[in-house]
Amino acid sequence: MQTLTVELGDRSYPIYIGHGIRQQKALFDAAIHGKQVMVVTNETIAPLYLDALVNLLSSDYKVDTCILPDGEAYKNLETYARIMTALLEAKHNRTTTVIALGGGVVGDMAGFAAATYQRGVPFIQVPTTLLSQVDSSVGGKTGVNHPLGKNMIGAFYQPQAVIIDTQTLETLPQRELSAGMSEVIKYGLICDALFFDWLETEIDALMSLDTVKISEAIYRSCVAKANVVAQDEREGGIRAILNLGHTFGHAIETQMGYGHWLHGEAVAAGCVLAADLSWRMGNITEQDLSRTVNLFRAAKLPVLPPREMTRDNFVAHMALDKKVLDGSLRLVLLETLGSAMVTSDFPMDDFNACLSDAIEASQ
Amino acid sequence: MQTLTVELGDRSYPIYIGHGIRQQKALFDAAIHGKQVMVVTNETIAPLYLDALVNLLSSDYKVDTCILPDGEAYKNLETYARIMTALLEAKHNRTTTVIALGGGVVGDMAGFAAATYQRGVPFIQVPTTLLSQVDSSVGGKTGVNHPLGKNMIGAFYQPQAVIIDTQTLETLPQRELSAGMSEVIKYGLICDALFFDWLETEIDALMSLDTVKISEAIYRSCVAKANVVAQDEREGGIRAILNLGHTFGHAIETQMGYGHWLHGEAVAAGCVLAADLSWRMGNITEQDLSRTVNLFRAAKLPVLPPREMTRDNFVAHMALDKKVLDGSLRLVLLETLGSAMVTSDFPMDDFNACLSDAIEASQ
Repeated sequence: MQTLTVELGDRSYPIYIGHGIRQQKALFDAAIHGKQVMVVTNETIAPLYLDALVNLLSSDYKVDTCILPDGEAYKNLETYARIMTALLEAKHNRTTTVIALGGGVVGDMAGFAAATYQRGVPFIQVPTTLLSQVDSSVGGKTGVNHPLGKNMIGAFYQPQAVIIDTQTLETLPQRELSAGMSEVIKYGLICDALFFDWLETEIDALMSLDTVKISEAIYRSCVAKANVVAQDEREGGIRAILNLGHTFGHAIETQMGYGHWLHGEAVAAGCVLAADLSWRMGNITEQDLSRTVNLFRAAKLPVLPPREMTRDNFVAHMALDKKVLDGSLRLVLLETLGSAMVTSDFPMDDFNACLSDAIEASQ
Repeated sequence: MQTLTVELGDRSYPIYIGHGIRQQKALFDAAIHGKQVMVVTNETIAPLYLDALVNLLSSDYKVDTCILPDGEAYKNLETYARIMTALLEAKHNRTTTVIALGGGVVGDMAGFAAATYQRGVPFIQVPTTLLSQVDSSVGGKTGVNHPLGKNMIGAFYQPQAVIIDTQTLETLPQRELSAGMSEVIKYGLICDALFFDWLETEIDALMSLDTVKISEAIYRSCVAKANVVAQDEREGGIRAILNLGHTFGHAIETQMGYGHWLHGEAVAAGCVLAADLSWRMGNITEQDLSRTVNLFRAAKLPVLPPREMTRDNFVAHMALDKKVLDGSLRLVLLETLGSAMVTSDFPMDDFNACLSDAIEASQ
């Protein structure tokens, strides 16, 4: 098992990473202070992992469960209210601990419920997807969507602990494994050139879920994110580099309709666009760009925008014309392979050529 | 104008108290950092004070408004969602400032909306009732009710500033003025004997809204609460003394149905019960008890439980039998006039006699 600490003063917390560790009761005991536990999960995860967790904890705690419908479509105030009702019906008090067992949607909602139940109770993340293990379980962002915008309602709220069991990846569909790997590769690109090199060597082993190597990849991803978050917990500055590829990716997700392209898939295509623009600006070499494209490909991820998507679509979703004109379109770009920056200072010609060539190549 | 600072490290904030100060734009300018402002108020307060505030701020800010229905019955997730929708429809971003203009219900809901809109935006309290000026605007408790419990959903979230304009009390119904005065008297009882003496002398002037004296009473109440909150922001210990009279009061409110007895009225009768028990235990003199009763009476507040209420009603709502038996009934009692403690160590005979005598006297 590997352990790291997210350093946030009196809100610091440990992340444990290992194979089968969701059955190590001591990890939970260290993070649970009261006698009540509410496990929040969803209909897909419950049949796989809920009973074992409830059995593990029932000897020492009063364990209740709340099983939500699966999917981003249910990440809203109504589902959040169901968690609150479950806590109240089971008479949980201010010493209860909420455990989020599932992917990013479960973690975001259970975390927001913990942040706001009786003005805040402890919670533990047990992320079961690669994406949530390397991304949403680190950093304390919790919340739900509003019909008028994603993640518009929420709080910054840190867990007591994150328990990452790599064994849960064995039940993850391959497409979701790839989508998670997209964020892993992103960490190499934005802040760790050696990690990027290592990923190139090990990508096949990682896609086959080699136990030791997947744990290492998650560990280094969490270290990367934890370092950035520790510098900028509330996203005032440097934390924005975590959004490499996300501005383009968001346009893709919106155009295609959420769920048609997974977030990680859109981020992969977006990262390639950002790397391409960084190459045109002379920040990275043509070889660096090829290596980036090849690594995403090896993780079975798209490296071009969807065939259906036109320049007008990008313009509409990124409010490009307006934002480029007034200089407010800020992109995360590479300074070198392994280092990123946030800038609105890039040549319009390069930007246009980057987008046009990608769209043409996708046809 | 009087000013005090609630000392909470990097979450410290100023409270301004004065006559007509809701029209001092500089106080708002110091607390607003962006260009967008959302004023949240209700249907009762809007016709009285909203236009003037919007006019005051419109020269420098984009000001939008959200007018909620009035009353505790609307303090729920649905009304909260309306504030979120208003913010999103008016395209407010993370630099917006929420201003709560109204009583405790508006402040609690607008504060919770500010705490959770895009994971937290600044807010300013402009409390317009005596109760909210001396109680809910200090301490950072925000939230809404759930059908299964009051204030079960919420967050600790501190404002940027509290602007208390005593002029707004001139439109407050007298019954609500008395209800607010109940909490003012409570501060004298729990932590400031000299303030209690002063209140005895000035109670008539205060009930007539003498400009200088009402400001002084609010100032000293806020100082008292701010001192307690600064020692115990998240209510782990000493903050509980603020609940003098609230355990009995809660039973009264619940039995009578919320809204029939105002919170402050139930607290007054509850404080007298707590003082009576403290006298029976020898903590305060019979004269202290008389002074307490007389001061609440002078503020036109009830000093006995409602005539309809039986011992069985108290037992049911306080879960008395069970809690007294297992020693978990903790009450806030007076150590002396001007000092309170939280204890579960009181003679059962005294407790029973206190309750029986009060019920008999109310018939």
